[in-house]
Amino acid sequence: MPKSDKGMEDKTERVNILRLTAESTSEIEDVVVRESPLTIVLNDQELVTLLCSPADQKNLAVGFLYSEGLINSRDEVKSVTLHEGTGVIRVETESGEELAREALFSRLITSGCGHGASFYSATDITGEKVESLLQVSVSEVLALTKEFQHRSETYRATGGVHSAALCDTKNILVFSEDIGRHNAMDKVFGECLLKDIPTDDRLVITSGRISSEILLKVARRNVPILISKSAPTSLGVKMAEELGITLVGFVRGKRVNVYTNNHRITSDGK
Amino acid sequence: MPKSDKGMEDKTERVNILRLTAESTSEIEDVVVRESPLTIVLNDQELVTLLCSPADQKNLAVGFLYSEGLINSRDEVKSVTLHEGTGVIRVETESGEELAREALFSRLITSGCGHGASFYSATDITGEKVESLLQVSVSEVLALTKEFQHRSETYRATGGVHSAALCDTKNILVFSEDIGRHNAMDKVFGECLLKDIPTDDRLVITSGRISSEILLKVARRNVPILISKSAPTSLGVKMAEELGITLVGFVRGKRVNVYTNNHRITSDGK
Repeated sequence: MPKSDKGMEDKTERVNILRLTAESTSEIEDVVVRESPLTIVLNDQELVTLLCSPADQKNLAVGFLYSEGLINSRDEVKSVTLHEGTGVIRVETESGEELAREALFSRLITSGCGHGASFYSATDITGEKVESLLQVSVSEVLALTKEFQHRSETYRATGGVHSAALCDTKNILVFSEDIGRHNAMDKVFGECLLKDIPTDDRLVITSGRISSEILLKVARRNVPILISKSAPTSLGVKMAEELGITLVGFVRGKRVNVYTNNHRITSDGK
Repeated sequence: MPKSDKGMEDKTERVNILRLTAESTSEIEDVVVRESPLTIVLNDQELVTLLCSPADQKNLAVGFLYSEGLINSRDEVKSVTLHEGTGVIRVETESGEELAREALFSRLITSGCGHGASFYSATDITGEKVESLLQVSVSEVLALTKEFQHRSETYRATGGVHSAALCDTKNILVFSEDIGRHNAMDKVFGECLLKDIPTDDRLVITSGRISSEILLKVARRNVPILISKSAPTSLGVKMAEELGITLVGFVRGKRVNVYTNNHRITSDGK
């Protein structure tokens, strides 16, 4: 059975396994990434249970509520209290009970692992396009992505987590990991919200595929450039186009694919 | 903008992109995996919108409803009707409106991308352990996994989908792909349900990481052996142990890791 590993901030556990080949059997100790349920209670009403990596839970809860449109600024958050033992996090907001009811109703309609179909029928999801004069060179994208990949210690140990980061054109400013790619992104934006870190005119990098849900999170924070070493989906490309976001995918080796709004990516020397 | 590619069953789209290196810029055509919203309407009530690959939608809808415990057998399904243009699939069940209301209530409590915390506190999630005398050799696991990887054409074209399959010890019996690893698994089990394909004493292979939600889907179909080339999470390992499921991970090259219930995996010649 898993034992906790304090050395990596409780993000991994050691397990005894059998390693088999056609010819040999050996009993070894392996490291797996931790997964824990986190139940968000918003103004005394149970809202949702996320399956996540048990670290940075406050950032996750606040980022999730922001992404889902249940809070709109830091000022609305009165308190965030994590109850470690039970996996419950309680968030109190200014608007109180009324918001929670509205939230539950909203979940009821959109619910599940997606959003309501109405969210996907038009460009007016977020109200407006992302406007930004930010530009970044191919070399800067490659350098940031390289640094980003070096940061993920848990992935190297377990092969089981996603990462996300907020950057300027030179440096990683906020970095998070989680077993879920949506959670990793929400942790980054939750930290930005709680620490008043601006996201306008900045870049976001994700280790995961770029689907429509990731685009919506990024658009909601007005981030003009989104980078991944993985592939985008068709709806991700369509939304990036419509939302004015520069989508850079398949950053591998020395080349990048720019899917949309390529005016923000410059060749070096230009 | 994406154009549909009929050649791959509408699972991919072609997009015009810029490919950049530090020295060069070229305009090329790339292929991305399609992502579409699918809204499941159960007995005239909108239940959930899944973001998925637009193929095998009937299998997905039925598999999803089964995994969520909203249907328990094929006999309960009166009709499944896909409305291609609108991305809506209507499922009618024997229990009718009463079930839909119950379903919505259930989503309201557990909701989100996870399940309620109560689901995770005990072993009695599914009522009982998976019992099966099935055994498979390391060589058979390696051969099945190799065949499984060869089957995923969409992944090779786009780098953007997950696959899942039901197998016996020699052959792949049911194979599905989707942008989501949960959806790929639900498509497999939906097809099994609709075609009366037994899942007892069989194996499931997934391309994705093995988290608790995947374990719950597999346990609900009484599948004794679960195989992935990726990593499991700690909760995935704990649930597999408790549910009597043999969990095989990190199938790479010529070796496999067996995390739980290793009596079902034999070295060759044993």
